[in-house]
Amino acid sequence: MGGGDFHDLSRLLSPRSVAILGASERPRSVGSDTLLNLAEHSDFDGQIFPVNPGRERVHGLRAYPAMSTLPGTVDVAVLCLPADAVIPALRECAAAGTGFAVVFTSGLGETGAKGRAIEAEMATIARESGMRIYGPNSPGFSNINRRLGLTFSPVFKDDRLGGGIGLVTQGGGLGRAFIQASERGIGTGLWCSTGNEADLTMADFVHHMLGDPDIRVIALLVEGIRDGPRFLRTARAAARAGKPMVAMKVGKSDYGIAATRSHTAALAGSAAVTSALFRQHGIVEVDDLDELIDTAALFERAGIARRKGICVYSFSGGTAALAADMVGSAGLTLSELAPDTRAGLRALAPSYAAIENPVDLTTQIFTQDTLNRDCLTLVARDPATDVVLLPIPADYGSITNRSADDMIALGAEDGALLVPVWMSGHRAAGYAALNTAGLAPFRSLGKAVNALRRLIWRGDWSLSPAQPPSMSELPSGELDEAGAKAALAGLGLKVPEGRVVTTAGKAEEAAREIGFPVVLKALVPGLLHKTEAGAVAVGLTDGDALAVAWDKMAASLAARGHQLDRALVERMEQGQGIEVMIGLHRDPVFGPVVSFGLGGVMVEALADVTHRAAPFGRSEAMAMIDEIRGRALLDPLRGRPGADLCALAGLLVTISTLGSHSDIEEVDLNPVHAGSKGATLLDALILRARSNIQGKANQ
Amino acid sequence: MGGGDFHDLSRLLSPRSVAILGASERPRSVGSDTLLNLAEHSDFDGQIFPVNPGRERVHGLRAYPAMSTLPGTVDVAVLCLPADAVIPALRECAAAGTGFAVVFTSGLGETGAKGRAIEAEMATIARESGMRIYGPNSPGFSNINRRLGLTFSPVFKDDRLGGGIGLVTQGGGLGRAFIQASERGIGTGLWCSTGNEADLTMADFVHHMLGDPDIRVIALLVEGIRDGPRFLRTARAAARAGKPMVAMKVGKSDYGIAATRSHTAALAGSAAVTSALFRQHGIVEVDDLDELIDTAALFERAGIARRKGICVYSFSGGTAALAADMVGSAGLTLSELAPDTRAGLRALAPSYAAIENPVDLTTQIFTQDTLNRDCLTLVARDPATDVVLLPIPADYGSITNRSADDMIALGAEDGALLVPVWMSGHRAAGYAALNTAGLAPFRSLGKAVNALRRLIWRGDWSLSPAQPPSMSELPSGELDEAGAKAALAGLGLKVPEGRVVTTAGKAEEAAREIGFPVVLKALVPGLLHKTEAGAVAVGLTDGDALAVAWDKMAASLAARGHQLDRALVERMEQGQGIEVMIGLHRDPVFGPVVSFGLGGVMVEALADVTHRAAPFGRSEAMAMIDEIRGRALLDPLRGRPGADLCALAGLLVTISTLGSHSDIEEVDLNPVHAGSKGATLLDALILRARSNIQGKANQ
Repeated sequence: MGGGDFHDLSRLLSPRSVAILGASERPRSVGSDTLLNLAEHSDFDGQIFPVNPGRERVHGLRAYPAMSTLPGTVDVAVLCLPADAVIPALRECAAAGTGFAVVFTSGLGETGAKGRAIEAEMATIARESGMRIYGPNSPGFSNINRRLGLTFSPVFKDDRLGGGIGLVTQGGGLGRAFIQASERGIGTGLWCSTGNEADLTMADFVHHMLGDPDIRVIALLVEGIRDGPRFLRTARAAARAGKPMVAMKVGKSDYGIAATRSHTAALAGSAAVTSALFRQHGIVEVDDLDELIDTAALFERAGIARRKGICVYSFSGGTAALAADMVGSAGLTLSELAPDTRAGLRALAPSYAAIENPVDLTTQIFTQDTLNRDCLTLVARDPATDVVLLPIPADYGSITNRSADDMIALGAEDGALLVPVWMSGHRAAGYAALNTAGLAPFRSLGKAVNALRRLIWRGDWSLSPAQPPSMSELPSGELDEAGAKAALAGLGLKVPEGRVVTTAGKAEEAAREIGFPVVLKALVPGLLHKTEAGAVAVGLTDGDALAVAWDKMAASLAARGHQLDRALVERMEQGQGIEVMIGLHRDPVFGPVVSFGLGGVMVEALADVTHRAAPFGRSEAMAMIDEIRGRALLDPLRGRPGADLCALAGLLVTISTLGSHSDIEEVDLNPVHAGSKGATLLDALILRARSNIQGKANQ
Repeated sequence: MGGGDFHDLSRLLSPRSVAILGASERPRSVGSDTLLNLAEHSDFDGQIFPVNPGRERVHGLRAYPAMSTLPGTVDVAVLCLPADAVIPALRECAAAGTGFAVVFTSGLGETGAKGRAIEAEMATIARESGMRIYGPNSPGFSNINRRLGLTFSPVFKDDRLGGGIGLVTQGGGLGRAFIQASERGIGTGLWCSTGNEADLTMADFVHHMLGDPDIRVIALLVEGIRDGPRFLRTARAAARAGKPMVAMKVGKSDYGIAATRSHTAALAGSAAVTSALFRQHGIVEVDDLDELIDTAALFERAGIARRKGICVYSFSGGTAALAADMVGSAGLTLSELAPDTRAGLRALAPSYAAIENPVDLTTQIFTQDTLNRDCLTLVARDPATDVVLLPIPADYGSITNRSADDMIALGAEDGALLVPVWMSGHRAAGYAALNTAGLAPFRSLGKAVNALRRLIWRGDWSLSPAQPPSMSELPSGELDEAGAKAALAGLGLKVPEGRVVTTAGKAEEAAREIGFPVVLKALVPGLLHKTEAGAVAVGLTDGDALAVAWDKMAASLAARGHQLDRALVERMEQGQGIEVMIGLHRDPVFGPVVSFGLGGVMVEALADVTHRAAPFGRSEAMAMIDEIRGRALLDPLRGRPGADLCALAGLLVTISTLGSHSDIEEVDLNPVHAGSKGATLLDALILRARSNIQGKANQ
């Protein structure tokens, strides 16, 4: 499937003919293992062409000295070659009309500038020839649903369990760990590992999977995103296709950022921005590899649906209490069992059992063989219960095996989603039976609840409508605070009434016009940290105070080599309210991104900020406002009225439209006074892109 | 071992003679399983007396009709009896001079008032007879190191792996899950499950384990703590004994609090207070059962030691990057490898391997058999490396088995602590070998890093010196704000200069004495929410403003049925600073507890508060200050000076001494102005205990 700026990858992932450059018989070598994986461990009925100038035959197949000697073009050429041979070989492949090249070779972009230059050349070859390149520094791919591997992995032959999960990674080892979840009955249908992404990126493979009817969930292991806006477009397409994306992102700390750079040459980007933009695009973010596996498996089984009520069901009171506790701590909801359900449970269970949710049947299930089956059936069919969480604390042999069988029998029927958790290190027949039946239990209760939280979140999430491009007009050139405020006022935003003045006398005149108390702010080109430089005076209540402030400000600026020959006099914002900050910046990965958080000193001290890719509409803006930790500070509190959230959301939307002005590098509104009637920009900074400013200067 | 208010439990846990009331031969019954567990599955060479009036013999042993017919006294009587038989049987046991009674019976305190009354009677029997009672609603205990079980568990016979972990739980099922970690080579030496704790509590068993030389780590699964101060004393004793305590507390959400109450009748207490007091006492708190097991096992292997540098070591670059990322996110430190170590690695590893920390040997270890062993040895002996974190992403069969063998061989030598993580669902010989060797791998990378964080925290933690009882004097009787401030000023604390006045005229006189601007606060007995009632006026800059404020306040109070006939005029605190809150309350579980957090509206909106059991010294006070999320707001910021942390700590210590005044119910200082020179109590409330006030009224 092709479309848009995405190339059709079906002949890469299901080729009819493959050339293997560097094919070899040396045991445990990449050239040998790759050939054997395709020739012996894949169900591949296409043509295989070993390319090796030093041999007549390789593993019984006729070998060719060069790509030019092949009897025809091939869909895929696999390069099992050292770093210095890559570029000549790629040129040879391109010249031979090859569709795709797979490059395993390590030691390129991840090792330094020389390697990065080679990768840039690879990209040029791809662009100029039309031959698309997979890798380098990639272990290849495993198309398990088609039983085909172009990979040198020595354990590919064990990859036999396909399934509805599509996995896209950048490295190899962690992807292999994911594949080995097949031991628990969790099958991966297609695993692509894009390595350093000289040409094809994760987004290309996600896009392919959206068109693959066998893939129902996409799991991503992200070290860095090379084409942020394109990646986000793919995420929107996934949302429209109803295929959940579950992602783990490496690079949340400085150690991780440095390590990913040396691993797959990936630019990690800001973790906070990535997380917020994933949320905005419905991508379910997880924090660990086991969570990626278990959450993807849960989505594969459960699909996307609105769910709410959870029933905790156990035969151990302590376990039931712990599970209910975790449900509560995660902000999830225990279902209120219907009267019929409760009456049914009451009739079946012993008097000391807990039949309210959480349900604790007690060890009575040890001696009463059908108790569990009958009660579980009642709970799974309870109208208020969407999910039954089944923590199994310990393995009691035949008793636990029977419980597992009860779940499996029920799982085939309609009813609530069953989510078993096997908490014990003892794993006998019941555990294996659940895995085989496709009910792979979680192994950690907390992680199960966390996965449910994510499942329920995704069920509630919906794609915001795409925003039309901005129509907002801004004056060109560099803008000082007065200019920026005037421009933003022109977009309908609220700024304090103010005048630009050039002398102390004019300042007083202006202040009388707009009314005391006022604020005086120096307008000095290029001056940052205005407060520290003494360039701001607030709470000036009369002409004398203003005159004193002017002189003091002039002296302070003079000491720093500036002159006070232009200033802004503004009416001081009165009334209660809270300060917030709103920013727009050009993220190196994702492009224009709007930030929102508590303002003033709080933004620095509490780092309570969230983000969205621009532009966006009011519902996203409201979601931003709701997700900061200090959200409650915007509510009415101790007699102070709440902030005007509608105005705040509108302000965020307007700022987000500025993202499409490619000449705007940054907008910084801090603080914004979030009052009960409107939000006022107390400070405003608009930075033009440097190239653009220089461009203007040269005109 | 006895001592203090702790009873010697050795004859309970290692009895010489046991009577089993309700002993039976009915298959799968409690009376039968308990007898078989002791007679057949324990190495018990003492006497067993089945007590059953209906039988001559039970399971081949001579049965007795009643306790009074036994040939002598017994160390332990085990009650396998229904709820209504418990009290008569306990009386019978006590009359027969029994040392301890174990009560399995459920359906008592956890079901309601009637059951709680029975438990109160049990406590009375214990107190009056000296016979100590274990339970009710307990599954018994397993003294695995001595191979002795007084329990009805049908799987006790499998509990064969003893070890250095002592486990104390209140319920059964989760404890059983812990015991089954024996499958992973994690052995529990003694498991006590105290049930509803009518008499003996968790603290008694922790105290016993401190004296048991075979127990090196204590794991706790807490639903509720009945004797908070005694529990904390035991934690201090554990710290002095060098035995780490690792605890999981159920009851963090409303669902969990309700569920624990119905499970073991436990009062959950505030989760935030419990967590903070655990920290204060060196108890390592974990959040899930698997964390309890793995963290306890790590402590058993590693002991308490100062550790810092972690080296991440892998053969997968992505896995190494993920692990390093998590180390960074957890606030931990990657070790800087010594030049010798790096030179050694450089000489051994391929050129494209990463030999800085994180170390990534690449798949070269697949083909170079001794590479892993040699490099791991270098890293484990690196002088800056205290811990080697070894994430194993996937099972590569013989290759992974060899890596495991390398770890096991090295683990026996001196060097850094090795912490393997087995991330794959595939678990072949290498996994089993690590378990058998006592190197049970973590299964989740994030959980491994989290456990390391806790291990390192505990290594750095030290017990604060015990505080002498308070010598502070406070006036008796109820105190209004002026009285409370005067009393606190008497303890050396800083309050704004102020006067108590009775008329507007006197208020102005007072204001002129102390200097404008001033604050006016009505002193109305029993008036809460003073701001909302209009009983506070701030920023009064002159006599007119004060007079207007007085009249307005009088009107507002009159509208609420109060009179303004007493008020406090205070100098208004000037200057920059931040508002914090300090409180003292009598916690229902732990007694006097001091709270500290951001003040004003922030405490309500952000709930950024921490706690300590009172009294405490300056180092604890500093730790409190450091652990609030908004800690950075107390630092110098944008030209504003930082808060006087010394003064703040001193204030916390002084308030903590008030905890020993049993007539003080609550102290609430909110806000406290944390300025750059001292901390000023802007508001102060001291609530006397109600009984005490009534006592005074009756004098």
